[in-house]
Amino acid sequence: MKFTVKQIADLLGGEIEGPGDLEIDKIAKIDEEAEEGSICFLANQKYENYIYQTNAAAVLVSKDFIPKKPVKATLIKVSDPYIAFTALLEEYQKILNQLKSQSKQGIEQPSVIGADFQAGDQVYIGAFSYIGANCRLGAHVKIYPHTYIGNNVTIDDHTIIYAGAKIYDDTLIGKHCTVHSGAVIGSEGFGFAPQADGTYKNIPQLGNVILEDYVNIGANTTVDRATIGSTLVQQGVKLDNLIQVGHNVVIGANTVMAAQSGVAGSSKIGKNCIIAGQVGIANSIQIADYTTLGAKAGVNSSIKQEKTVLIGAPAIDYKNFLKSSVIFKKLPELQKRVEELEEKIVNLTST
Amino acid sequence: MKFTVKQIADLLGGEIEGPGDLEIDKIAKIDEEAEEGSICFLANQKYENYIYQTNAAAVLVSKDFIPKKPVKATLIKVSDPYIAFTALLEEYQKILNQLKSQSKQGIEQPSVIGADFQAGDQVYIGAFSYIGANCRLGAHVKIYPHTYIGNNVTIDDHTIIYAGAKIYDDTLIGKHCTVHSGAVIGSEGFGFAPQADGTYKNIPQLGNVILEDYVNIGANTTVDRATIGSTLVQQGVKLDNLIQVGHNVVIGANTVMAAQSGVAGSSKIGKNCIIAGQVGIANSIQIADYTTLGAKAGVNSSIKQEKTVLIGAPAIDYKNFLKSSVIFKKLPELQKRVEELEEKIVNLTST
Amino acid sequence: MKFTVKQIADLLGGEIEGPGDLEIDKIAKIDEEAEEGSICFLANQKYENYIYQTNAAAVLVSKDFIPKKPVKATLIKVSDPYIAFTALLEEYQKILNQLKSQSKQGIEQPSVIGADFQAGDQVYIGAFSYIGANCRLGAHVKIYPHTYIGNNVTIDDHTIIYAGAKIYDDTLIGKHCTVHSGAVIGSEGFGFAPQADGTYKNIPQLGNVILEDYVNIGANTTVDRATIGSTLVQQGVKLDNLIQVGHNVVIGANTVMAAQSGVAGSSKIGKNCIIAGQVGIANSIQIADYTTLGAKAGVNSSIKQEKTVLIGAPAIDYKNFLKSSVIFKKLPELQKRVEELEEKIVNLTST
Repeated sequence: MKFTVKQIADLLGGEIEGPGDLEIDKIAKIDEEAEEGSICFLANQKYENYIYQTNAAAVLVSKDFIPKKPVKATLIKVSDPYIAFTALLEEYQKILNQLKSQSKQGIEQPSVIGADFQAGDQVYIGAFSYIGANCRLGAHVKIYPHTYIGNNVTIDDHTIIYAGAKIYDDTLIGKHCTVHSGAVIGSEGFGFAPQADGTYKNIPQLGNVILEDYVNIGANTTVDRATIGSTLVQQGVKLDNLIQVGHNVVIGANTVMAAQSGVAGSSKIGKNCIIAGQVGIANSIQIADYTTLGAKAGVNSSIKQEKTVLIGAPAIDYKNFLKSSVIFKKLPELQKRVEELEEKIVNLTST
Repeated sequence: MKFTVKQIADLLGGEIEGPGDLEIDKIAKIDEEAEEGSICFLANQKYENYIYQTNAAAVLVSKDFIPKKPVKATLIKVSDPYIAFTALLEEYQKILNQLKSQSKQGIEQPSVIGADFQAGDQVYIGAFSYIGANCRLGAHVKIYPHTYIGNNVTIDDHTIIYAGAKIYDDTLIGKHCTVHSGAVIGSEGFGFAPQADGTYKNIPQLGNVILEDYVNIGANTTVDRATIGSTLVQQGVKLDNLIQVGHNVVIGANTVMAAQSGVAGSSKIGKNCIIAGQVGIANSIQIADYTTLGAKAGVNSSIKQEKTVLIGAPAIDYKNFLKSSVIFKKLPELQKRVEELEEKIVNLTST
Repeated sequence: MKFTVKQIADLLGGEIEGPGDLEIDKIAKIDEEAEEGSICFLANQKYENYIYQTNAAAVLVSKDFIPKKPVKATLIKVSDPYIAFTALLEEYQKILNQLKSQSKQGIEQPSVIGADFQAGDQVYIGAFSYIGANCRLGAHVKIYPHTYIGNNVTIDDHTIIYAGAKIYDDTLIGKHCTVHSGAVIGSEGFGFAPQADGTYKNIPQLGNVILEDYVNIGANTTVDRATIGSTLVQQGVKLDNLIQVGHNVVIGANTVMAAQSGVAGSSKIGKNCIIAGQVGIANSIQIADYTTLGAKAGVNSSIKQEKTVLIGAPAIDYKNFLKSSVIFKKLPELQKRVEELEEKIVNLTST
């Protein structure tokens, strides 16, 4: 696909400085060797030097950008180059997706589809997919190859399930969700009751998982089914890769969690929280809305105050943690200072 | 499936207070809007308020429970409501499983089964399963769709392998085990020998993995094959999701590990240990029986004393860690106190 | 396969002490009950006792090993028993692989292969594999069952993709790589732009993943595609299981990472680094060549000095961390000493 610089500038509502008829067929980063025919953006002053060297055909810049040296590329001046660039990426993806969805339609063979199956318009089911009994797919749903879907599963409009995801029985998935490869939704949670002889007995896990609309589940992330009731991932939640969500957990709307974090059984996370990578949240606790947890935080008690920012294990106030960490590094010195004080005191009291 | 309150009370050996002919068809939690026709339990006093509001048909309560207000639901009095409820769940699941296993039998097509295959009675092999040469499945084994089983694999009676688990060559799996979706059993461990030029050479991994009876492997958990000999997961071990077990590791009987924990190569964990989430255990160490490791513990040396309770990284005594953590939080203050002491000492000595 | 002790000694350039005509058909560890007909090695003095008890037919020992008691097994004296043993394993595996690759060839059915497919000699494609359009496989490539390969993927000579790995569109994989089961290469990175209303919008991920030659990707490890450009895993990199590599990350040549570590988006790790298990590396930072990171390290700022050894979260100098950790354990005592000093000072100043 090729577009002229002018076409792109018009799309983004930008002003052109330089020739508008050059053809663009690639999107690039300014800090790499952007090739001829590519477009990139300059948002951060520290990359300014690159603009004087780039071979890119066009660069998105801020309205108030004034070059200090000659620039070979055509400038497209916009109010926010990063936002404009993102908009461009989106347009580009939209076209790609359109091309993709034209090709990805229908039911590839071999695939297995159980009894009482219902599907909306323009559904894609990839080869080697297995769909159990009594399932319902909305319109425009795409099920990539090797996907396993158990019985009584509903997947609503425009949701994409990538190759090899595994969806156990009774799962409900909303509209516009994305479930990446290797994710396991609805497997049996870790419910084992200790017996007098030291062995453990399985506690049946009879509930299900509900993913509301606009939820993203990363690759190889696992969301356990509830013991009773539902494990609930609310609207707009974005879970990164390799995350563990225990049975009966609730994750509030628009909360984002980075890779390798985990939430133990029955905990309830508020809405609009930001949870960094490798965070651990203990079982049966509550986390208030708008909480931010730093990377590797370990939370073992409820957070009641909204907008709290914590880090560390056990998690404490973020600024406090930073200060304490600086001193942790100097503990040998601090200990020595205490020793010296002790000596001095001894000297003082003995004189 | 519907049961009368009386039938359930009889099953659990409980006493009825209220009408016994109501029909139950759902299991619910008391702290939710339990619907009509459901049964729930009250074990924890803090949920007592719910019992006066619930629409549930019946509630399991303790023998000595005396309502402070009128209760609409029929009470079933038992000695331990939680245990009774668990028993009820189990009965329920048993019936569900019976229904399931009646439907899940036989070999679905397409599937690939290698040479010299042996299988016991009532085996289920789902579509798109691939079983290598020289494999043996016991009676009542269920292999869900998309499962990969290499060569020379034995899976004993009543074991369930869920959709998309991958079992490499030579693995031995005992009776009554469960392997969840996405688990990888027997892949090559991380064996790389550093070379003089900075590169690494593969160390062949020729051993296998043995899972003894009643082992549970969570979703997306990985258990590496041994370099030589066997990586051994002993009887009754329960591994949660996203756990890493390195080559030549031994995990003792009835040990449970929560999600995202990892054990590096050649370490040996005793029996009946409790290992919380996100714990890391270094390579080639030994951990005594009945050890408890708190969440995110990092263990880098052997634990010789049984019944030790550790947490932290590096892991130390649990109570010690809690006390030290409290002071960690106040390190800036402690440092300030030392500074003040130093000033005072200077003043004292200079006067 | 059986070999005489003499044949093995010749292969390894070792000297025989004892009969050379015994037949070997197993490889064993000296610290286990090595059976008759097996060969093992003694490299570490602490295992010396085993050599006087073993039933093994032969033991690889150091040239300068002088038994303190009679040894039943034939000794094969070599300059480095461990290296010799590794060489033996390799020979053994080579033969096994030869046998395997003779059997693993051709395209098993059912499998789906897209348009414009090219493949070199002696390629294996397992049943239930799905290969998209415009893919190219080099010679001797092995694709195990249930593998998903998107469009425009290139996999070069001698690379093995194990069962159920998922390779998204546009991925480039070099020669002699291994990708283990459940690994997901090229899924969409965690790119979400926060909106004014608290929701997040997907940032299209248009780049790809490049794995250079001799790269190892462990089971269930995830490598995200770049937003633009490429996520790059350079030559000789070895990634263990359950690792997360974010979008646009670069991992330098010959760097090794142990299980459950993660690298957030756009970070650049140098070459020949050693990264232990459960390490977390924040986004957009640079790590110098030859850096060593201890288990559970949390790195949140760039490491500029080569050969740095860090641990802790936040990561600090390794020795410093160990010293500070010792004092952390004694913080309650240190605090008490400060209290005592304060009392004494009060006493001194009040007198």
